[in-house]
Amino acid sequence: MKKLINEADNVVADALAGLTAAHPGLRVFPDRGFVMRADAPVAGKVGLVSGGGSGHEPLHVGFVGAGMLDAACPGEVFTSPVPDQILAATAAVHAGAGVVHIVKNYTGDVLNFEMAADLASDERIRVESVLVDDDVAVQDSLYTAGRRGTGATVVVEKVAGAAAAAGAALDEVVAIGRRANARSRSYGIALTACTTPSAGAPTFSLGPDEVEFGIGIHGEPGRARGALAPAADLVGHALDAVLADLDPGGDPVLVLVNGMGATPLIELYVAMGAAASQLAGRGVNMVRSLVGNYVTSLDMSGFSLTVTVLDDELARLWDAPVATAALTWGEAGRWP
Amino acid sequence: MKKLINEADNVVADALAGLTAAHPGLRVFPDRGFVMRADAPVAGKVGLVSGGGSGHEPLHVGFVGAGMLDAACPGEVFTSPVPDQILAATAAVHAGAGVVHIVKNYTGDVLNFEMAADLASDERIRVESVLVDDDVAVQDSLYTAGRRGTGATVVVEKVAGAAAAAGAALDEVVAIGRRANARSRSYGIALTACTTPSAGAPTFSLGPDEVEFGIGIHGEPGRARGALAPAADLVGHALDAVLADLDPGGDPVLVLVNGMGATPLIELYVAMGAAASQLAGRGVNMVRSLVGNYVTSLDMSGFSLTVTVLDDELARLWDAPVATAALTWGEAGRWP
Repeated sequence: MKKLINEADNVVADALAGLTAAHPGLRVFPDRGFVMRADAPVAGKVGLVSGGGSGHEPLHVGFVGAGMLDAACPGEVFTSPVPDQILAATAAVHAGAGVVHIVKNYTGDVLNFEMAADLASDERIRVESVLVDDDVAVQDSLYTAGRRGTGATVVVEKVAGAAAAAGAALDEVVAIGRRANARSRSYGIALTACTTPSAGAPTFSLGPDEVEFGIGIHGEPGRARGALAPAADLVGHALDAVLADLDPGGDPVLVLVNGMGATPLIELYVAMGAAASQLAGRGVNMVRSLVGNYVTSLDMSGFSLTVTVLDDELARLWDAPVATAALTWGEAGRWP
Repeated sequence: MKKLINEADNVVADALAGLTAAHPGLRVFPDRGFVMRADAPVAGKVGLVSGGGSGHEPLHVGFVGAGMLDAACPGEVFTSPVPDQILAATAAVHAGAGVVHIVKNYTGDVLNFEMAADLASDERIRVESVLVDDDVAVQDSLYTAGRRGTGATVVVEKVAGAAAAAGAALDEVVAIGRRANARSRSYGIALTACTTPSAGAPTFSLGPDEVEFGIGIHGEPGRARGALAPAADLVGHALDAVLADLDPGGDPVLVLVNGMGATPLIELYVAMGAAASQLAGRGVNMVRSLVGNYVTSLDMSGFSLTVTVLDDELARLWDAPVATAALTWGEAGRWP
């Protein structure tokens, strides 16, 4: 195992020290287990809290800031955060308007966020949850009942965060988040497995010409193993899976081509080129996009493709300004 | 070789197709070999053009946009752009105020940019060059006379771009860029080699417990080979090399912890944590930072560390708004 780390047991704590140093606008509470925007609680605003196992960076800590999350709770690598840290974050960001939990659909995350919501309710904080379950690859998995939550988490956190920043009430923020999730589907393909620092060996092995179709973000098995193929074929396979489950029906879409952690940006743009051309061929109108490493799986090589069917409100919320470590754009626009 | 590509010979063209699709605010001219912000030439503004071999994404195409480059000329992988494409980009962005070429110090790049500047001068376009040579690892290399240009390129392109956006004249933009370069030093360490699509095999081989110190961004040799060590030790080695050549002398610094392409963000933050703590221990005041993949070497695993000694003007120009594919922040601030 070749990693740029100190000790395997300290990776999350050491990374949080780096986050603290690099982002003076974040408050990192290593002992209490969460990262918060420094100006939280924001008076009158609905609070947004997410979290999950580490190893998916920039998710979630990289999405804390104005226009997105108020706080994130990083668990150990591929391990859910515990209820105490979620409760602490929830209480810290609560400004009287309630708190929304954005939860990826993994059994541990769901249980621990539910327990934290119950505890928060004992403290008279109203909490509602938005569950993200966009991954069409498998119906149930090692870690889930139902679909897994993957790339769409970025979209849900962005649009719900923008709604909250614009002053939406708790129920509205929840409705926006759920709508974004319901209109999103994802599918991932791995070229290599990932290696957790504690295990020190790859989570599975793939032959030199093999890929894993429908991979999850923890190295859990996908749908099937197949032969390495040109990017256009792999993208076509992912698009088939996504669009079989989600019909844009003439509405415009947002496309996220997401790297799994070790795939160079030039390759992700090759995949985006293929996705754009094939979507156009299928009559799907891509009007927004994002290319890069957003929901990763440590040092896994590969990509996932997320399609979100937009409506005017979702597009507007996506375009709204955001200032986080990993996603930042101003009033003037999102990209060139 | 496992890559998310179509054909090895088409990687750059295919990636440019993806760039075109993802960024409607860019104009991509695949036949003429450059990428330009769609609103160029910008009336009255000094034009900024950079470029170099592909394989270092997001450098340079990801830095085209308001507040940074007007155009970038991507060569084939690890291959300098040719004078014709640089000339075409120069002429396209020229708005009467002259054009600045930002050139990484590699023999091919320097020659081809010089030739393009001469040709532009024949067309009565005044061109000045800013050479970036920040890498302290080697004095001369396979590809250079003198130091190589690496991570500081991001800083030079950002501050020169901000100066041009603010209306600075050609000589001022050049002076800003040269000052940023003169006040910057970098050093990189590789955990693995990279594999070019055309070669299909790693550029060198490292044992399971070996790292290459002072690596360049093309897989060219560094200073020495050594044992894999904790991140804090590797960062300390890089800081020693950088600070031996650059004395902040009490001035504040900007620190870039840059991934080489295949190193997960969580590891880069571990490195940033070590860098911040060690800089503080050495009495160096880090006031700005950037963590992520900015000047990469295809699928190489590892990192480079760049330190820029700031003055008030450089800090202000760094903070100025920017809207490119890879670096975007608004008036409200750069990060949380």
